[in-house]
Amino acid sequence: MKQKALVILSGGQDSTTCVWWAIERFGQESVESLTFDYRQLHRHELHAARQVAAHAGIPNVVLPINTFEALGGSALTDPSIEVPRTTESDSLPVTFVPGRNLVFLTFAAAYAWRHDIQHLVTGVAQTDYSGYPDCRRDTIDSLEKTLALGLERHFTIHTPLMNLSKKETVLLAKELGAMDAMALTHTCYNGSVPPCGECAACILRAKGFAEAGIPDPLIA
Amino acid sequence: MKQKALVILSGGQDSTTCVWWAIERFGQESVESLTFDYRQLHRHELHAARQVAAHAGIPNVVLPINTFEALGGSALTDPSIEVPRTTESDSLPVTFVPGRNLVFLTFAAAYAWRHDIQHLVTGVAQTDYSGYPDCRRDTIDSLEKTLALGLERHFTIHTPLMNLSKKETVLLAKELGAMDAMALTHTCYNGSVPPCGECAACILRAKGFAEAGIPDPLIA
Repeated sequence: MKQKALVILSGGQDSTTCVWWAIERFGQESVESLTFDYRQLHRHELHAARQVAAHAGIPNVVLPINTFEALGGSALTDPSIEVPRTTESDSLPVTFVPGRNLVFLTFAAAYAWRHDIQHLVTGVAQTDYSGYPDCRRDTIDSLEKTLALGLERHFTIHTPLMNLSKKETVLLAKELGAMDAMALTHTCYNGSVPPCGECAACILRAKGFAEAGIPDPLIA
Repeated sequence: MKQKALVILSGGQDSTTCVWWAIERFGQESVESLTFDYRQLHRHELHAARQVAAHAGIPNVVLPINTFEALGGSALTDPSIEVPRTTESDSLPVTFVPGRNLVFLTFAAAYAWRHDIQHLVTGVAQTDYSGYPDCRRDTIDSLEKTLALGLERHFTIHTPLMNLSKKETVLLAKELGAMDAMALTHTCYNGSVPPCGECAACILRAKGFAEAGIPDPLIA
Protein backbone atom coordinates (compact mmCIF):
# COMPACT_ATOMS: atom_id res chain seq x y z
CA MET A 1 0.00 0.00 0.00
CA LYS A 2 1.15 3.50 -0.85
CA GLN A 3 2.48 5.25 2.25
CA LYS A 4 0.83 8.60 2.98
CA ALA A 5 1.71 11.25 5.53
CA LEU A 6 -0.21 13.94 7.37
CA VAL A 7 1.72 16.93 8.72
CA ILE A 8 0.22 18.88 11.61
CA LEU A 9 0.79 22.39 10.31
CA SER A 10 0.44 25.34 12.66
CA GLY A 11 1.87 27.80 10.17
CA GLY A 12 5.00 28.25 12.31
CA GLN A 13 8.64 27.71 11.52
CA ASP A 14 8.85 24.17 12.89
CA SER A 15 5.78 22.61 11.33
CA THR A 16 6.65 24.29 8.03
CA THR A 17 10.05 22.62 8.13
CA CYS A 18 8.20 19.34 8.75
CA VAL A 19 6.18 19.80 5.55
CA TRP A 20 9.38 19.89 3.52
CA TRP A 21 10.78 16.95 5.52
CA ALA A 22 7.65 14.90 4.75
CA ILE A 23 7.71 15.83 1.07
CA GLU A 24 11.32 14.69 0.79
CA ARG A 25 10.51 11.44 2.59
CA PHE A 26 7.11 10.50 1.12
CA GLY A 27 6.83 12.55 -2.08
CA GLN A 28 4.71 15.67 -2.58
CA GLU A 29 1.66 13.75 -3.87
CA SER A 30 1.55 11.64 -0.70
CA VAL A 31 1.58 14.47 1.82
CA GLU A 32 -1.36 16.39 3.27
CA SER A 33 -1.39 19.04 5.98
CA LEU A 34 -3.84 19.41 8.86
CA THR A 35 -4.33 22.68 10.72
CA PHE A 36 -6.35 23.09 13.91
CA ASP A 37 -8.53 26.12 14.38
CA TYR A 38 -8.65 25.98 18.16
CA ARG A 39 -9.79 29.59 18.37
CA GLN A 40 -6.25 30.75 18.88
CA LEU A 41 -6.16 34.50 19.41
CA HIS A 42 -3.67 34.78 16.57
CA ARG A 43 -5.85 34.10 13.57
CA HIS A 44 -2.90 34.91 11.34
CA GLU A 45 -1.57 31.39 12.10
CA LEU A 46 -4.38 29.89 9.99
CA HIS A 47 -3.57 32.21 7.12
CA ALA A 48 0.13 31.33 7.41
CA ALA A 49 -0.66 27.59 7.35
CA ARG A 50 -2.76 28.00 4.20
CA GLN A 51 0.00 30.00 2.51
CA VAL A 52 2.69 27.50 3.46
CA ALA A 53 0.64 24.54 2.19
CA ALA A 54 -0.12 26.36 -1.08
CA HIS A 55 3.57 27.14 -1.51
CA ALA A 56 4.38 23.45 -0.90
CA GLY A 57 1.62 22.37 -3.30
CA ILE A 58 -0.16 20.12 -0.79
CA PRO A 59 -3.72 20.11 0.60
CA ASN A 60 -4.47 21.95 3.84
CA VAL A 61 -7.42 20.65 5.85
CA VAL A 62 -8.66 22.77 8.76
CA LEU A 63 -10.37 21.07 11.70
CA PRO A 64 -12.12 23.18 14.34
CA ILE A 65 -11.68 22.53 18.08
CA ASN A 66 -13.77 24.78 20.33
CA THR A 67 -12.90 22.93 23.55
CA PHE A 68 -9.67 24.62 24.65
CA GLU A 69 -11.29 28.03 24.71
CA ALA A 70 -14.06 26.58 26.88
CA LEU A 71 -11.47 25.01 29.21
CA GLY A 72 -9.82 28.41 29.54
CA GLY A 73 -6.66 29.40 31.37
CA SER A 74 -4.06 29.66 28.59
CA ALA A 75 -2.47 32.78 27.18
CA LEU A 76 -2.91 31.31 23.69
CA THR A 77 -6.71 31.40 23.81
CA ASP A 78 -7.50 33.88 26.61
CA PRO A 79 -6.84 37.57 25.89
CA SER A 80 -6.83 38.41 29.62
CA ILE A 81 -3.65 36.38 30.26
CA GLU A 82 -0.39 38.12 29.42
CA VAL A 83 2.35 36.33 27.48
CA PRO A 84 5.66 36.51 29.37
CA ARG A 85 8.60 38.19 27.71
CA THR A 86 11.23 35.65 28.65
CA THR A 87 11.56 31.89 28.71
CA GLU A 88 12.90 31.83 32.27
CA SER A 89 10.61 29.86 34.51
CA ASP A 90 10.75 26.72 36.62
CA SER A 91 7.06 25.98 36.31
CA LEU A 92 4.91 25.31 33.27
CA PRO A 93 4.49 28.44 31.14
CA VAL A 94 1.14 30.28 30.91
CA THR A 95 1.10 29.39 27.22
CA PHE A 96 0.74 25.71 28.26
CA VAL A 97 -2.60 24.30 27.18
CA PRO A 98 -2.98 21.00 29.08
CA GLY A 99 -3.24 18.09 26.67
CA ARG A 100 -3.07 20.21 23.54
CA ASN A 101 -0.60 18.10 21.60
CA LEU A 102 -2.24 14.89 22.79
CA VAL A 103 -5.57 16.12 21.45
CA PHE A 104 -4.03 17.38 18.20
CA LEU A 105 -2.35 14.04 17.53
CA THR A 106 -5.44 12.04 18.48
CA PHE A 107 -7.63 14.03 16.10
CA ALA A 108 -4.90 13.78 13.44
CA ALA A 109 -4.96 10.00 13.89
CA ALA A 110 -8.77 10.01 13.62
CA TYR A 111 -8.50 11.95 10.36
CA ALA A 112 -5.73 9.63 9.15
CA TRP A 113 -7.86 6.60 10.09
CA ARG A 114 -10.63 7.80 7.79
CA HIS A 115 -8.28 8.67 4.93
CA ASP A 116 -5.92 5.65 5.00
CA ILE A 117 -2.91 7.68 6.04
CA GLN A 118 -0.27 5.79 8.04
CA HIS A 119 2.19 8.50 9.05
CA LEU A 120 1.74 11.55 11.23
CA VAL A 121 4.40 14.25 11.32
CA THR A 122 4.66 16.90 14.03
CA GLY A 123 7.22 19.61 14.71
CA VAL A 124 7.41 19.16 18.48
CA ALA A 125 10.87 19.22 20.05
CA GLN A 126 12.25 18.67 23.50
CA THR A 127 15.41 20.72 22.98
CA ASP A 128 15.74 24.43 23.49
CA TYR A 129 11.98 24.96 23.90
CA SER A 130 9.35 26.15 26.32
CA GLY A 131 9.16 22.91 28.30
CA TYR A 132 5.79 21.49 27.34
CA PRO A 133 5.70 17.90 28.64
CA ASP A 134 3.53 16.71 25.76
CA CYS A 135 6.31 17.63 23.32
CA ARG A 136 8.75 15.03 24.69
CA ARG A 137 9.50 11.84 22.80
CA ASP A 138 8.56 9.58 25.73
CA THR A 139 5.07 11.14 25.70
CA ILE A 140 4.85 10.70 21.93
CA ASP A 141 5.99 7.05 22.17
CA SER A 142 3.33 6.36 24.76
CA LEU A 143 0.66 8.10 22.69
CA GLU A 144 1.66 6.08 19.63
CA LYS A 145 0.91 2.90 21.60
CA THR A 146 -2.35 4.32 22.96
CA LEU A 147 -3.54 5.26 19.47
CA ALA A 148 -2.65 1.82 18.09
CA LEU A 149 -4.75 0.21 20.83
CA GLY A 150 -7.63 2.68 20.70
CA LEU A 151 -7.94 2.90 16.92
CA GLU A 152 -6.84 -0.66 16.10
CA ARG A 153 -4.43 0.64 13.51
CA HIS A 154 -0.78 1.63 13.78
CA PHE A 155 0.21 5.21 13.08
CA THR A 156 3.86 6.18 13.10
CA ILE A 157 4.35 9.58 14.68
CA HIS A 158 7.41 11.25 13.18
CA THR A 159 9.10 14.02 15.14
CA PRO A 160 11.99 15.04 12.88
CA LEU A 161 12.87 18.10 14.99
CA MET A 162 12.69 16.33 18.37
CA ASN A 163 16.38 16.52 19.22
CA LEU A 164 17.40 19.50 17.15
CA SER A 165 18.29 22.91 18.53
CA LYS A 166 16.65 25.91 16.90
CA LYS A 167 19.93 26.49 15.04
CA GLU A 168 19.86 22.94 13.68
CA THR A 169 16.19 23.32 12.69
CA VAL A 170 17.08 26.41 10.66
CA LEU A 171 19.92 24.53 8.97
CA LEU A 172 17.60 21.60 8.22
CA ALA A 173 15.02 23.95 6.70
CA LYS A 174 17.70 25.41 4.45
CA GLU A 175 18.94 21.96 3.43
CA LEU A 176 15.37 20.88 2.55
CA GLY A 177 14.76 23.99 0.47
CA ALA A 178 12.15 25.38 2.88
CA MET A 179 13.78 28.77 3.36
CA ASP A 180 11.48 30.61 0.93
CA ALA A 181 8.48 29.29 2.87
CA MET A 182 9.91 30.73 6.10
CA ALA A 183 8.83 34.16 4.88
CA LEU A 184 5.22 32.92 5.05
CA THR A 185 5.36 31.51 8.57
CA HIS A 186 4.06 32.90 11.84
CA THR A 187 5.80 32.26 15.16
CA CYS A 188 5.16 35.29 17.42
CA TYR A 189 3.23 34.55 20.66
CA ASN A 190 1.91 38.09 20.61
CA GLY A 191 0.48 37.60 17.14
CA SER A 192 2.28 40.60 15.70
CA VAL A 193 2.90 40.84 11.96
CA PRO A 194 5.77 41.62 11.59
CA PRO A 195 6.78 39.67 14.74
CA CYS A 196 7.14 41.53 18.05
CA GLY A 197 10.72 40.32 18.58
CA GLU A 198 10.19 40.28 22.33
CA CYS A 199 8.14 37.19 23.24
CA ALA A 200 9.69 33.81 24.06
CA ALA A 201 8.86 32.43 20.61
CA CYS A 202 10.37 35.40 18.76
CA ILE A 203 13.51 35.30 20.91
CA LEU A 204 14.03 31.58 20.28
CA ARG A 205 13.46 32.01 16.55
CA ALA A 206 15.87 34.94 16.28
CA LYS A 207 18.51 33.02 18.26
CA GLY A 208 18.19 30.02 15.92
CA PHE A 209 18.63 32.06 12.74
CA ALA A 210 21.49 34.07 14.29
CA GLU A 211 23.37 30.95 15.37
CA ALA A 212 22.81 29.35 11.97
CA GLY A 213 24.23 32.47 10.34
CA ILE A 214 21.19 32.80 8.06
CA PRO A 215 18.95 35.88 7.88
CA ASP A 216 15.30 35.21 8.76
CA PRO A 217 13.31 35.79 5.55
CA LEU A 218 10.31 36.84 7.65
CA ILE A 219 12.04 39.95 8.96
CA ALA A 220 14.80 40.40 6.38
CA MET B 1 -4.86 16.33 49.86
CA LYS B 2 -8.57 15.71 49.51
CA GLN B 3 -9.25 13.23 46.71
CA LYS B 4 -11.70 14.45 44.08
CA ALA B 5 -13.31 12.61 41.20
CA LEU B 6 -14.70 13.62 37.82
CA VAL B 7 -17.26 11.34 36.18
CA ILE B 8 -17.66 11.51 32.42
CA LEU B 9 -21.44 11.59 32.24
CA SER B 10 -23.18 10.95 28.93
CA GLY B 11 -26.61 10.73 30.48
CA GLY B 12 -26.79 7.01 29.73
CA GLN B 13 -27.30 4.03 31.96
CA ASP B 14 -23.61 3.22 32.40
CA SER B 15 -22.20 6.64 33.18
CA THR B 16 -25.13 7.26 35.53
CA THR B 17 -24.21 4.11 37.44
CA CYS B 18 -20.66 5.49 37.59
CA VAL B 19 -21.91 8.67 39.28
CA TRP B 20 -23.35 6.62 42.13
CA TRP B 21 -20.19 4.48 42.24
CA ALA B 22 -18.04 7.61 42.56
CA ILE B 23 -20.27 9.12 45.23
CA GLU B 24 -20.01 5.94 47.31
CA ARG B 25 -16.25 5.87 46.87
CA PHE B 26 -15.31 9.56 47.18
CA GLY B 27 -18.32 11.19 48.85
CA GLN B 28 -20.92 13.39 47.19
CA GLU B 29 -19.11 16.66 47.92
CA SER B 30 -15.97 15.39 46.13
CA VAL B 31 -17.60 14.34 42.86
CA GLU B 32 -18.25 16.43 39.74
CA SER B 33 -19.61 15.34 36.38
CA LEU B 34 -18.43 16.36 32.93
CA THR B 35 -20.60 16.06 29.84
CA PHE B 36 -19.40 16.55 26.27
CA ASP B 37 -21.56 18.37 23.79
CA TYR B 38 -19.95 16.87 20.69
CA ARG B 39 -22.94 17.86 18.57
CA GLN B 40 -24.50 14.45 18.99
CA LEU B 41 -27.70 14.20 17.03
CA HIS B 42 -29.51 13.14 20.17
CA ARG B 43 -29.59 16.38 22.11
CA HIS B 44 -31.73 14.67 24.73
CA GLU B 45 -28.50 13.10 26.08
CA LEU B 46 -27.40 16.51 27.39
CA HIS B 47 -30.73 17.00 29.09
CA ALA B 48 -30.53 13.53 30.62
CA ALA B 49 -27.01 14.22 31.95
CA ARG B 50 -28.16 17.45 33.56
CA GLN B 51 -31.14 15.70 35.17
CA VAL B 52 -29.02 12.81 36.47
CA ALA B 53 -26.44 15.18 37.97
CA ALA B 54 -29.15 17.27 39.61
CA HIS B 55 -30.72 14.12 41.04
CA ALA B 56 -27.31 13.08 42.40
CA GLY B 57 -26.70 16.57 43.79
CA ILE B 58 -23.39 17.09 41.98
CA PRO B 59 -22.19 19.74 39.49
CA ASN B 60 -22.49 19.08 35.77
CA VAL B 61 -20.00 20.88 33.54
CA VAL B 62 -20.59 20.79 29.79
CA LEU B 63 -17.63 21.10 27.43
CA PRO B 64 -18.23 21.60 23.69
CA ILE B 65 -16.32 19.61 21.05
CA ASN B 66 -17.12 20.58 17.47
CA THR B 67 -14.39 18.42 15.91
CA PHE B 68 -16.12 15.05 15.52
CA GLU B 69 -18.87 16.53 13.41
CA ALA B 70 -16.21 18.11 11.19
CA LEU B 71 -14.40 14.76 10.91
CA GLY B 72 -17.67 13.15 9.81
CA GLY B 73 -18.44 9.54 9.10
CA SER B 74 -20.26 8.37 12.25
CA ALA B 75 -23.92 7.56 12.71
CA LEU B 76 -23.81 9.42 16.05
CA THR B 77 -23.15 12.81 14.45
CA ASP B 78 -24.20 12.39 10.81
CA PRO B 79 -27.95 12.11 10.13
CA SER B 80 -27.32 10.54 6.70
CA ILE B 81 -25.81 7.37 8.22
CA GLU B 82 -28.30 4.79 9.43
CA VAL B 83 -27.93 3.12 12.81
CA PRO B 84 -27.99 -0.69 12.44
CA ARG B 85 -30.71 -2.63 14.23
CA THR B 86 -28.55 -5.44 15.52
CA THR B 87 -25.17 -5.82 17.17
CA GLU B 88 -24.05 -8.54 14.76
CA SER B 89 -20.98 -7.45 12.85
CA ASP B 90 -17.36 -8.50 12.46
CA SER B 91 -16.13 -5.04 11.63
CA LEU B 92 -16.23 -1.81 13.61
CA PRO B 93 -19.80 -0.47 13.91
CA VAL B 94 -20.93 2.68 12.07
CA THR B 95 -21.49 4.27 15.46
CA PHE B 96 -17.70 4.10 16.00
CA VAL B 97 -16.20 7.58 16.22
CA PRO B 98 -12.42 7.08 15.91
CA GLY B 99 -10.63 8.29 19.02
CA ARG B 100 -13.76 9.49 20.77
CA ASN B 101 -13.05 8.04 24.20
CA LEU B 102 -9.38 8.98 23.95
CA VAL B 103 -10.37 12.57 23.28
CA PHE B 104 -13.03 12.57 26.01
CA LEU B 105 -10.57 11.28 28.59
CA THR B 106 -7.81 13.65 27.49
CA PHE B 107 -10.11 16.67 27.79
CA ALA B 108 -11.40 15.32 31.11
CA ALA B 109 -7.79 15.14 32.31
CA ALA B 110 -7.18 18.70 31.09
CA TYR B 111 -10.22 19.86 33.08
CA ALA B 112 -9.09 17.82 36.09
CA TRP B 113 -5.59 19.31 35.78
CA ARG B 114 -7.02 22.81 36.14
CA HIS B 115 -9.32 21.88 39.02
CA ASP B 116 -7.00 19.68 41.12
CA ILE B 117 -9.01 16.54 40.53
CA GLN B 118 -7.04 13.28 40.67
CA HIS B 119 -9.59 10.66 39.64
CA LEU B 120 -11.44 10.19 36.37
CA VAL B 121 -14.37 7.77 36.17
CA THR B 122 -15.78 6.43 32.93
CA GLY B 123 -18.47 3.86 32.20
CA VAL B 124 -16.69 2.09 29.34
CA ALA B 125 -16.80 -1.70 29.31
CA GLN B 126 -15.26 -4.43 27.23
CA THR B 127 -17.89 -7.06 28.00
CA ASP B 128 -21.14 -7.53 26.15
CA TYR B 129 -20.77 -4.28 24.19
CA SER B 130 -20.43 -2.89 20.70
CA GLY B 131 -16.72 -3.61 20.36
CA TYR B 132 -15.16 -0.15 20.45
CA PRO B 133 -11.39 -0.66 20.83
CA ASP B 134 -10.99 2.51 22.89
CA CYS B 135 -13.26 1.03 25.56
CA ARG B 136 -10.86 -1.79 26.45
CA ARG B 137 -8.82 -1.71 29.63
CA ASP B 138 -5.49 -2.11 27.80
CA THR B 139 -6.25 1.07 25.86
CA ILE B 140 -7.24 2.86 29.08
CA ASP B 141 -4.05 1.68 30.84
CA SER B 142 -1.95 2.98 27.98
CA LEU B 143 -3.80 6.30 27.96
CA GLU B 144 -3.31 6.66 31.73
CA LYS B 145 0.46 6.46 31.15
CA THR B 146 0.30 8.86 28.21
CA LEU B 147 -1.65 11.43 30.24
CA ALA B 148 0.79 11.16 33.16
CA LEU B 149 3.68 11.88 30.77
CA GLY B 150 1.93 14.59 28.76
CA LEU B 151 0.37 16.47 31.67
CA GLU B 152 3.06 15.75 34.26
CA ARG B 153 0.46 14.67 36.77
CA HIS B 154 -1.01 11.27 37.49
CA PHE B 155 -4.71 10.71 36.95
CA THR B 156 -6.26 7.40 37.91
CA ILE B 157 -8.85 6.34 35.35
CA HIS B 158 -11.50 4.23 37.04
CA THR B 159 -13.61 1.91 34.90
CA PRO B 160 -15.92 0.25 37.42
CA LEU B 161 -18.05 -1.40 34.72
CA MET B 162 -15.15 -2.69 32.60
CA ASN B 163 -15.69 -6.39 33.21
CA LEU B 164 -19.37 -6.39 34.06
CA SER B 165 -22.11 -7.75 31.84
CA LYS B 166 -25.16 -5.54 31.31
CA LYS B 167 -26.98 -7.71 33.82
CA GLU B 168 -24.25 -7.11 36.42
CA THR B 169 -24.29 -3.38 35.69
CA VAL B 170 -28.02 -3.29 36.40
CA LEU B 171 -27.48 -5.19 39.65
CA LEU B 172 -24.67 -2.80 40.63
CA ALA B 173 -26.90 0.22 39.92
CA LYS B 174 -29.56 -1.26 42.18
CA GLU B 175 -27.03 -1.99 44.93
CA LEU B 176 -25.73 1.61 44.77
CA GLY B 177 -29.22 3.08 44.95
CA ALA B 178 -29.08 4.44 41.40
CA MET B 179 -32.29 2.83 40.19
CA ASP B 180 -34.43 5.96 40.56
CA ALA B 181 -31.96 7.82 38.39
CA MET B 182 -32.33 5.19 35.66
CA ALA B 183 -35.69 6.73 34.81
CA LEU B 184 -33.82 9.92 33.82
CA THR B 185 -31.23 8.29 31.57
CA HIS B 186 -31.03 8.11 27.80
CA THR B 187 -29.53 5.12 25.98
CA CYS B 188 -31.30 4.79 22.59
CA TYR B 189 -29.05 5.16 19.51
CA ASN B 190 -32.05 6.43 17.57
CA GLY B 191 -32.61 9.18 20.10
CA SER B 192 -36.22 8.21 20.72
CA VAL B 193 -37.97 9.22 23.94
CA PRO B 194 -39.36 6.78 25.01
CA PRO B 195 -36.61 4.52 23.61
CA CYS B 196 -37.13 2.80 20.23
CA GLY B 197 -36.49 -0.66 21.66
CA GLU B 198 -34.95 -1.78 18.37
CA CYS B 199 -31.43 -0.33 18.13
CA ALA B 200 -28.33 -2.13 19.45
CA ALA B 201 -28.21 0.06 22.56
CA CYS B 202 -31.90 -0.50 23.42
CA ILE B 203 -31.59 -4.24 22.88
CA LEU B 204 -28.54 -4.51 25.15
CA ARG B 205 -30.21 -2.40 27.82
CA ALA B 206 -33.42 -4.44 27.75
CA LYS B 207 -31.44 -7.69 27.89
CA GLY B 208 -29.55 -6.45 30.97
CA PHE B 209 -32.66 -5.49 32.90
CA ALA B 210 -34.44 -8.70 31.86
CA GLU B 211 -31.56 -10.90 32.99
CA ALA B 212 -31.27 -8.99 36.26
CA GLY B 213 -34.98 -9.54 36.82
CA ILE B 214 -35.57 -5.84 37.42
CA PRO B 215 -38.01 -3.68 35.45
CA ASP B 216 -36.38 -0.76 33.63
CA PRO B 217 -37.76 2.41 35.29
CA LEU B 218 -37.35 4.26 31.98
CA ILE B 219 -40.00 2.18 30.24
CA ALA B 220 -41.88 0.76 33.24
